[in-house]
Amino acid sequence: MPTSPLLDQISRLMNEQIPFHRLIGLEVKRFASDISEVQFHWQADLIGNVPQGILHGGVTATALDMCGGLVAIAGVVETLPDDTSPDEVIQRISRCGTIDLRVDYVRPGRGKTFITTAHTIRSGNKVAVARMEMHNEDNMLIAFGTGTYMVG
Amino acid sequence: MPTSPLLDQISRLMNEQIPFHRLIGLEVKRFASDISEVQFHWQADLIGNVPQGILHGGVTATALDMCGGLVAIAGVVETLPDDTSPDEVIQRISRCGTIDLRVDYVRPGRGKTFITTAHTIRSGNKVAVARMEMHNEDNMLIAFGTGTYMVG
Amino acid sequence: MPTSPLLDQISRLMNEQIPFHRLIGLEVKRFASDISEVQFHWQADLIGNVPQGILHGGVTATALDMCGGLVAIAGVVETLPDDTSPDEVIQRISRCGTIDLRVDYVRPGRGKTFITTAHTIRSGNKVAVARMEMHNEDNMLIAFGTGTYMVG
Amino acid sequence: MPTSPLLDQISRLMNEQIPFHRLIGLEVKRFASDISEVQFHWQADLIGNVPQGILHGGVTATALDMCGGLVAIAGVVETLPDDTSPDEVIQRISRCGTIDLRVDYVRPGRGKTFITTAHTIRSGNKVAVARMEMHNEDNMLIAFGTGTYMVG
Repeated sequence: MPTSPLLDQISRLMNEQIPFHRLIGLEVKRFASDISEVQFHWQADLIGNVPQGILHGGVTATALDMCGGLVAIAGVVETLPDDTSPDEVIQRISRCGTIDLRVDYVRPGRGKTFITTAHTIRSGNKVAVARMEMHNEDNMLIAFGTGTYMVG
Repeated sequence: MPTSPLLDQISRLMNEQIPFHRLIGLEVKRFASDISEVQFHWQADLIGNVPQGILHGGVTATALDMCGGLVAIAGVVETLPDDTSPDEVIQRISRCGTIDLRVDYVRPGRGKTFITTAHTIRSGNKVAVARMEMHNEDNMLIAFGTGTYMVG
Repeated sequence: MPTSPLLDQISRLMNEQIPFHRLIGLEVKRFASDISEVQFHWQADLIGNVPQGILHGGVTATALDMCGGLVAIAGVVETLPDDTSPDEVIQRISRCGTIDLRVDYVRPGRGKTFITTAHTIRSGNKVAVARMEMHNEDNMLIAFGTGTYMVG
Repeated sequence: MPTSPLLDQISRLMNEQIPFHRLIGLEVKRFASDISEVQFHWQADLIGNVPQGILHGGVTATALDMCGGLVAIAGVVETLPDDTSPDEVIQRISRCGTIDLRVDYVRPGRGKTFITTAHTIRSGNKVAVARMEMHNEDNMLIAFGTGTYMVG
């Protein structure tokens, strides 16, 4: 099983079948072990500060956590044998999880589209560490963060 | 204006008028500068790991961030003069915000009701630091965290 | 090999044979998987802020990291078979390491004696998470932190 | 007073008069509000893991914290009026301090020379946030981190 179709399949799963991703509208745009990207659009439901009209910090944390989890998961998927069945892949991924997450809020979350990218900083057979950033459509840095993930 | 009715009023505002709190079902149960408490109930929309049926880490991060923000805000409100108008209070609060957040995920987010508590660790006229914990209805520790908030 | 003598032996090793611990004067006072304690005394060499006469933040970070590492290591040692040789124990411990560390500085580092305690929050066969605090001899909280450690 | 000579003067102070910097051998190489750099050389006193011969994590934390503090301080110094006296500058700086620090350990601390760089991510009149990295002389990334600093 070549990696790309498999990653495509997992992307669809992440977009369509994870309830909290759907609630926020998080969408996987890139999914690889070196860089992953997640995008979502402004919607009134995501507001945390009403007088100032800015995103809830929890939305930002969710997008960063998801994006960091993606690069970590991609690193796991790349190590699986080619003949791993989709069910086995999903079982394997479902055992991954966030150990800890740090989010630094740099600017108020204002914009139309928010793009989160993640890079793998440390990749191991047990733990992966990713660094994440979130920009808006004007390429303003809104937040960055670091996530440590259990992968094995 | 005595502090308690004011805090009650802000609680209602937090529960009813902040869109992302309503989306998740976050509800303020206690709101004071020494300890604040936020609660929410399990719902399928909050799932992040489908095969294992556990909460999305972003939901946990949102609840911890909100709860830490509450103790920080309560500290601000307590310093306001008695005759501060509700509008001024809201303006004052709307300038507060999370600087950074760390979440440590201890156990899978499973349960019927999730209770988040926050304590103020450092309280200043510019920055407040809070420590937060999330338990389920069986008092199992699911996550803890630390938040640094701009308050002045 | 009973655990206590082994932990005593490792304590002596930590105090006497780790160069950076000796430089700062860090001393293991308790060493167990539920709670560990590290102590050091004020000395002019540890100053980071000269006009105010307060400890360098790096000294505090070092003490917290060491203390968190101790509870993590104690958890590992407890799982070793009774007949593990001291050399094997040391080899096993030397493969443990800090993945990430967060330190929150609450009050200026002033005092005569600084006591750091660590509790295990998450204990696994790969990763352990500890929560740490540092007080001075008047029981004033100076800093707290969280450490994630690779243990297997 | 032009900024550069003032920053030069503070650099010397940081190198020569802060006891814990001297103990570790930390030396300011660049000192500006956009990027600062700190360097130190391997010495046996800095070892934390004897069997593996690697730096103590507290040494790394100290270097990252110092370097992040430098960019934060440089941001403060740049806002001071030209005729600020050196004494006033030192008093002003001595009121700055680390609020919180996160360190991510990526590779074992091995090398001859360790170079830490810091960039300002958020600069305000109350709080500054910096991102830091530490490489060895072969440009291997050993650790990175984030620091939040009180600056006003």
